[in-house]
Amino acid sequence: MVIRKLETCFSPVLYRADDYVDSIVVVIDVLRSTSSICTAFANGATAIIPVADISVAKEYKEKGYLVAAERDGFVLDFADFGNSPFNFTREKVAGKTIVYSTTNGTGIIDSAASSYMTVVGSFLNITALSQWLIKQDRNILLFCAGYKNKFNVEDSIFAGAVAEKLTEKNQYSNICDSTLAALDLWSLACNDLRGYIEKTEQRTRLREKKIDDCIDFCLTPDFTDKIPVMKNGILVDNIL
Amino acid sequence: MVIRKLETCFSPVLYRADDYVDSIVVVIDVLRSTSSICTAFANGATAIIPVADISVAKEYKEKGYLVAAERDGFVLDFADFGNSPFNFTREKVAGKTIVYSTTNGTGIIDSAASSYMTVVGSFLNITALSQWLIKQDRNILLFCAGYKNKFNVEDSIFAGAVAEKLTEKNQYSNICDSTLAALDLWSLACNDLRGYIEKTEQRTRLREKKIDDCIDFCLTPDFTDKIPVMKNGILVDNIL
Repeated sequence: MVIRKLETCFSPVLYRADDYVDSIVVVIDVLRSTSSICTAFANGATAIIPVADISVAKEYKEKGYLVAAERDGFVLDFADFGNSPFNFTREKVAGKTIVYSTTNGTGIIDSAASSYMTVVGSFLNITALSQWLIKQDRNILLFCAGYKNKFNVEDSIFAGAVAEKLTEKNQYSNICDSTLAALDLWSLACNDLRGYIEKTEQRTRLREKKIDDCIDFCLTPDFTDKIPVMKNGILVDNIL
Repeated sequence: MVIRKLETCFSPVLYRADDYVDSIVVVIDVLRSTSSICTAFANGATAIIPVADISVAKEYKEKGYLVAAERDGFVLDFADFGNSPFNFTREKVAGKTIVYSTTNGTGIIDSAASSYMTVVGSFLNITALSQWLIKQDRNILLFCAGYKNKFNVEDSIFAGAVAEKLTEKNQYSNICDSTLAALDLWSLACNDLRGYIEKTEQRTRLREKKIDDCIDFCLTPDFTDKIPVMKNGILVDNIL
């Protein structure tokens, strides 16, 4: 039995890149960016170029790329569309390379660049992702985007959901306190995920901005078996 | 009914001082420094000078002060004693001013210096502290020391325990995701606090260093009604 470390990081400011150069880092921003990325690949996108900086996203737009970009839930004026997974339809994205910039999600993809491998997680690909992670002989970090560097509930319970699948057979010897907490929060949330999310700050923000129509979808397990992975600064759908 | 904000911060690196200049900040490091501080005042200490820097603690020692100082659970060679609450006996501390430096706890006291008021919390003074907080017309931040800037379970569940007492009568309108998580973790821990702590990283560290004899004591509610408060850079026991 391989003994590996399983850690969870609740915010980008808690991330210490030097600790994860040999780890697989799972980036998590379930409401909404990592759900949207999984949706894009499920609908046939070829690649996604994550861009943390708005001005860089704009430069790509000027070069003719399809650009999805938002800040604080609102579509940026130069972008083709924003951060709802419902934007990433087959009609729009199949066969395309998409440039993508969001409030929280693309920042952590940048942060994780020095890790052994960066993959994208959401409820939409949770089983495929977890089964693939279990097969790897690597330490794993579940890296939550949070909200503007703060802890958030929805990414943490997703980390707990993945940790539950990963720890079923005790393959991980070293479970950090953050993972313990994520597992326990997930144990409280799992029987009524939609109800549990109801009390969170992001739920309130999305409702206030009238962009909460996609929450049920984002909480749907196993919409796809795609596992987006970073290769040379670009997300592709081929994990191998 | 006064409507106030109740927030929780899980790590010093998540703390944003500008957000809390008008708030009461409760510093939390239950294993062991804030428990030791509460014990010292319960046993008649006059004042505690928290010092983040070891060299400053040493200078105080040379001036003749009683110095409690540790790093990673081990007493520093120049110090009178370390960070176990059992060191802060009435015989040693009554009527004394103690200089105090620890791995995590004294750092967050420094960080919170620009807040409206900084008070010290532990299970040892939880009821007195909570009742006093409820009476204040202030936003409150529960500030967990964590461990070397990482999230830890024991401080988080204490934050949840305080939040439970504070939210009984819905005096707080704005409950952040961290507080929601702390409340939920506390709901899982409260019926068997000692058992819940058993799985944490700090439990393992204290066991390995053979300094875990004080855990039961640190988890004891209401050993004292003292509420240590910072005044002019020094902790005193008079909240008023």
